[in-house]
Amino acid sequence: MNLLTPPEGRSIDVVCVGMAIVDVLAHAEDAFLDTHAMIKGSMELIDTERALSVYADMPPAIEVSGGSAANTAAGVASFGGSVAFVGKVADDELGAVFAHDIRAAGVSFDIEPLAGAEAAAGTARCLILVTPDAQRTMNTYLGVAASLRPIDIDAALIASAKVLYIEGYLWDDPGAKDVIRAAIGAAHAAGTRVAFTLSDGFCVDRHRAEFLDLIAGDVDILFANESEICSLYETTEFDVAVSNVVGHVAVACLTRSEHGSIILTADGERITIPAVATTPVDTTGAGDLYAAGLLTGWTTGRTLAEAGRMGSLAAAEVISHLGARPQHPLAELWKEHA
Amino acid sequence: MNLLTPPEGRSIDVVCVGMAIVDVLAHAEDAFLDTHAMIKGSMELIDTERALSVYADMPPAIEVSGGSAANTAAGVASFGGSVAFVGKVADDELGAVFAHDIRAAGVSFDIEPLAGAEAAAGTARCLILVTPDAQRTMNTYLGVAASLRPIDIDAALIASAKVLYIEGYLWDDPGAKDVIRAAIGAAHAAGTRVAFTLSDGFCVDRHRAEFLDLIAGDVDILFANESEICSLYETTEFDVAVSNVVGHVAVACLTRSEHGSIILTADGERITIPAVATTPVDTTGAGDLYAAGLLTGWTTGRTLAEAGRMGSLAAAEVISHLGARPQHPLAELWKEHA
Repeated sequence: MNLLTPPEGRSIDVVCVGMAIVDVLAHAEDAFLDTHAMIKGSMELIDTERALSVYADMPPAIEVSGGSAANTAAGVASFGGSVAFVGKVADDELGAVFAHDIRAAGVSFDIEPLAGAEAAAGTARCLILVTPDAQRTMNTYLGVAASLRPIDIDAALIASAKVLYIEGYLWDDPGAKDVIRAAIGAAHAAGTRVAFTLSDGFCVDRHRAEFLDLIAGDVDILFANESEICSLYETTEFDVAVSNVVGHVAVACLTRSEHGSIILTADGERITIPAVATTPVDTTGAGDLYAAGLLTGWTTGRTLAEAGRMGSLAAAEVISHLGARPQHPLAELWKEHA
Repeated sequence: MNLLTPPEGRSIDVVCVGMAIVDVLAHAEDAFLDTHAMIKGSMELIDTERALSVYADMPPAIEVSGGSAANTAAGVASFGGSVAFVGKVADDELGAVFAHDIRAAGVSFDIEPLAGAEAAAGTARCLILVTPDAQRTMNTYLGVAASLRPIDIDAALIASAKVLYIEGYLWDDPGAKDVIRAAIGAAHAAGTRVAFTLSDGFCVDRHRAEFLDLIAGDVDILFANESEICSLYETTEFDVAVSNVVGHVAVACLTRSEHGSIILTADGERITIPAVATTPVDTTGAGDLYAAGLLTGWTTGRTLAEAGRMGSLAAAEVISHLGARPQHPLAELWKEHA
């Protein structure tokens, strides 16, 4: 039984903090990944020069708003939850696209875009190659998304929420640690729960010690997939990783692609959640939408088992089409499914 | 029998001239069209103010390169044809998206983007609402696409092509008439054939006299759908429109959605082409891709009947997904289909 309950008297369900990114999505063959020395399924940070050269070689693409925590926010809103997003865009065309899309999805987004000389790096974009196996390989040019600062953190907003959700990708911005500290400090002070996703196996490699510290001291709900949790504990055995994570957080949600997910609670419960069957077209956003379902379920007082099934459903919806945000209202899909 | 043959000794199949536009596509209910006083299935020109207000109200969208003649160019390239596009973007992010996508599609595109103060209007965008019946309703903010000038017309390029393809939408730019005259003049001087699409029923309303002149004097191959050809001859009877158009052009291709198309030649031949069955998701680009198939077939020496079937196949491909350019190589689809 899970003893972690959402705090009372909150006006918002979830505040998501993360990188504000527009995805540039194209279909490509595996050979494209080889030619460009990309590791399938991973996220690599790229500089301006590589962004230009990879883009020049990419097939015709579509632009669609993304960003891990932003996708989760859109998913919570699609389930009918009340949710805000905190992230940074520039006052350029892609920034306007990002801001439009997240607001149109029903998410509160009140961070001013960066303007003038500070905005020269532009709104972040992620060049995503979707291979015939539906896997996505991501190349992220961070632009101004890496300019999120403590001043962007509104303690009152976080205090009004049941849970603060933070993406591990934020650690890739050297300046963002202060932001995360400010956000977590505001959450702890207000009794707002803290949820965290490990984001990517290589991201875990880059920040393992800090992630372990954070998980031990600050995180209530942890999200990770198999490769991320194995990377965290430097093991190739999923079961070893599982035994390591138990006890460190109140709730650990470990996703396993088509094998569904496992939810572990601090008091030893282990809940197995099946995946929802679908034909994957593009796996971008699967983990983000699983988190959206789980968090919506948990903040609305459902059991972890039911919340996990909401996560599975949301993940199945988002991998059934191109793009990392839901195309069908998840609240309706859940009503039909449940 | 069609006496119009492609000229010999050309290095390029088709040169397409038109508005360079990025589409902003979203699903919407019919009520959205009513609320915003939009006419389903039509294209309306909008100013900056309306562009901002419609966009603010639109659901989350995707950005994908469009533009009528540009879509046709992408279609010709997808069939394996050699094709160039002439149109104007600004040196902004959407301009870079347009240029990337059309080049990545295999189309030559050598027009310099507008820069500096001249580029303030920005790259054109078309706000497209796709209703549950798969119809598209288009709101076009022309931006710098309306700044195409005679200097952008390369007579040598046109002289190297078998056919010059011009979209009727160009007439909506008061300055573009000189461009069209320059392009047609270059075509006539070189023996390059001239193809023309009426584009949209309301566009025909705006420019009927000029379109009639053009068709009588300059056009070899005409493309129109039912509402456009009826608008041209101010009749509600398709058969009346048909009897009017015969004799004015060497080849008239009249498309009729799910009823396929009719190809009429100057010497009285009437070829009926069936549609290729598919489940429509988004009809944006259907006419553009029909033209791509027809022109590819004709420039490669096929019969008009076969060329028309290539048009039907390309139209079916493009309406089976969101976005107005082919997602599957048309050359391969045609090989499987033929």
